[in-house]
Amino acid sequence: MPTIQDVAKHAAVSVSTVSNVLNGRADRMRAETLARVEAAIDALQFRPSKLAQQLKTGQTPLIGLLVPSMTNPMYGYIAREIETVAQEGFGYRLLIGSTYRDPQKESAFFDDLLSQGVRRVIVISSLADERHFESAVERGMVVVSYDRGATPGRPSRVAHVMPDNFEAARLATQHLIDKGHRRLAFATVAGMTMSRSAKIDGFYAAADAAGLRAHAKLIDGGPLNEYGDSVIAEVGRAMAWQIARATRRPTGIVALNDLMALGLMAGLRESGLVVPRDVSIVGVDGHFLAGLSNPGLTTVQLPVPEMARAMVERVMHPQADADSGSVFAPTQLIERESVAPPPATAKPRAARAGTERVAP
Amino acid sequence: MPTIQDVAKHAAVSVSTVSNVLNGRADRMRAETLARVEAAIDALQFRPSKLAQQLKTGQTPLIGLLVPSMTNPMYGYIAREIETVAQEGFGYRLLIGSTYRDPQKESAFFDDLLSQGVRRVIVISSLADERHFESAVERGMVVVSYDRGATPGRPSRVAHVMPDNFEAARLATQHLIDKGHRRLAFATVAGMTMSRSAKIDGFYAAADAAGLRAHAKLIDGGPLNEYGDSVIAEVGRAMAWQIARATRRPTGIVALNDLMALGLMAGLRESGLVVPRDVSIVGVDGHFLAGLSNPGLTTVQLPVPEMARAMVERVMHPQADADSGSVFAPTQLIERESVAPPPATAKPRAARAGTERVAP
Repeated sequence: MPTIQDVAKHAAVSVSTVSNVLNGRADRMRAETLARVEAAIDALQFRPSKLAQQLKTGQTPLIGLLVPSMTNPMYGYIAREIETVAQEGFGYRLLIGSTYRDPQKESAFFDDLLSQGVRRVIVISSLADERHFESAVERGMVVVSYDRGATPGRPSRVAHVMPDNFEAARLATQHLIDKGHRRLAFATVAGMTMSRSAKIDGFYAAADAAGLRAHAKLIDGGPLNEYGDSVIAEVGRAMAWQIARATRRPTGIVALNDLMALGLMAGLRESGLVVPRDVSIVGVDGHFLAGLSNPGLTTVQLPVPEMARAMVERVMHPQADADSGSVFAPTQLIERESVAPPPATAKPRAARAGTERVAP
Repeated sequence: MPTIQDVAKHAAVSVSTVSNVLNGRADRMRAETLARVEAAIDALQFRPSKLAQQLKTGQTPLIGLLVPSMTNPMYGYIAREIETVAQEGFGYRLLIGSTYRDPQKESAFFDDLLSQGVRRVIVISSLADERHFESAVERGMVVVSYDRGATPGRPSRVAHVMPDNFEAARLATQHLIDKGHRRLAFATVAGMTMSRSAKIDGFYAAADAAGLRAHAKLIDGGPLNEYGDSVIAEVGRAMAWQIARATRRPTGIVALNDLMALGLMAGLRESGLVVPRDVSIVGVDGHFLAGLSNPGLTTVQLPVPEMARAMVERVMHPQADADSGSVFAPTQLIERESVAPPPATAKPRAARAGTERVAP
């Protein structure tokens, strides 16, 4: 790579003359000299390093983006939206790391960002504890955390941008109830994040309001492996076999997210059940893959482009009241083909469900 | 963010004393002074900037990764594999950009990488022309290009790592022929990249070998929009409607990749055709999503982890004969449910196909 010295040598001038050209201090320079330096810069394809500048300001035009796993198509979608706003709005690019919701990997990523001079970070983690993010803020970083709120009662200097997960799951559950389902389930994985917890609350809220709390069950598909979110579909698939074997299986299931819903549908099919004839499924995310599945997956659309814009703007223009948080309501339920009325065999129970309220 | 000056002030020593500690030159320092500096470093959570070091060497521990679009789940998968090798094997992280196969966006990304001191780049583009990559090599970058070979007859300093696309498509087509299909099609998009061209050659080679060249058609689904590869499934979906309306439609279709195959299956279903009863489909990639579809998508598995390792090793240890290229054979055809013998109505033709050889 050519250096400023190479340019000076090529143009037969001093390094400080080249430096003057590069820094716009050529007013009193002879036109011939200026032309020679510019010709040398072109000939050598010299690009002045931004590193020296960054050394002074301690900033690089990069946003760090920490995702659980790049293989989860939902994070690819979110990353692309963040990249578009960062690039077109601010000329920033993304330094991405998969950290598998592992606090140690997350901290190591923050250390690397700091030593690269990257001071703006968007994190998708949603672990219950974000003290390691607070410590990054103390070291001068601007941190925006996606898909979780601040810990109640603990002031935070991390900004939060999140979908209304409670409302998304409530909408999905209400849709099943509206279609006549009484035996409801929420399918999740082991490990409680804030967003999972909010979705579960939304699920129960809809069941409560319909007097169906006693028929509303949580199904925990067990832990994800080291690759985390990329295998959530496989957890859904395995879970489907348990559901198929259950004596009083749910007729309507809300899945934690679209990828889990796709896995659930594959597993239910493999176990001999037909969606939606035997079991109805609703996802949460609104990922484009939900529109490709067979049957098409009914899902709650999250406003990803709007959330991405809010994340980039908050990380570029930090506010004093970082803690205030931005909550985005789901835009709509997209009805496709994965929901139908419950099967006839389940209907007698469903008909009685109104009288089976939970004792107070 | 604390500076070396802050540490010096906190420890009540000179900046050069702190610098000596940071650079391991503390042999002749008083133990008490060393302890005070170390305590100040801890107290302020000071991390020495790697930027100064990078300024000297012109290198940062980052690999640039240029992908057509982060929303294509196949690139998410490849990126994760590259990241794992780069991180675990070399301590490098990824600076990623989506460039939508646009040469201008690609060049702009290279300029940004250069000015960041990033000198190692893996590009997934597979445009026919890679002169803009050659120019990056001239400026001192190490470039590894995925999914395409060097332009024949033109020496290249860009290294190439690619799957054997010819063989992948040949295998997929042969599988359809083995199942009795005679009316074959290869489904692609507008715009010829090297990898698409190699797949088409492999498709025709299998048809030729079975004497079916006259029955082997190319179906071009038209152009991708600005978001490029993320919408390839929608191109497949639209194409399915054309196929369904054709008078002599193909019974066996090889899709350019898994995502297009998933779109094709969705579109065929919407147009009233049943896969594989009416039409059989084979994909290429072996992405995990192919295992979630209904019916399960039969596909040719590409050796992504091995290719990712080769890409990272070549970008970290450039060789003189960059041009030699590394071609990875597809590991296997994964049989699922999207292929069956051709429908009975098509069989009479199929039975006669042996006599319908293309005239030499």
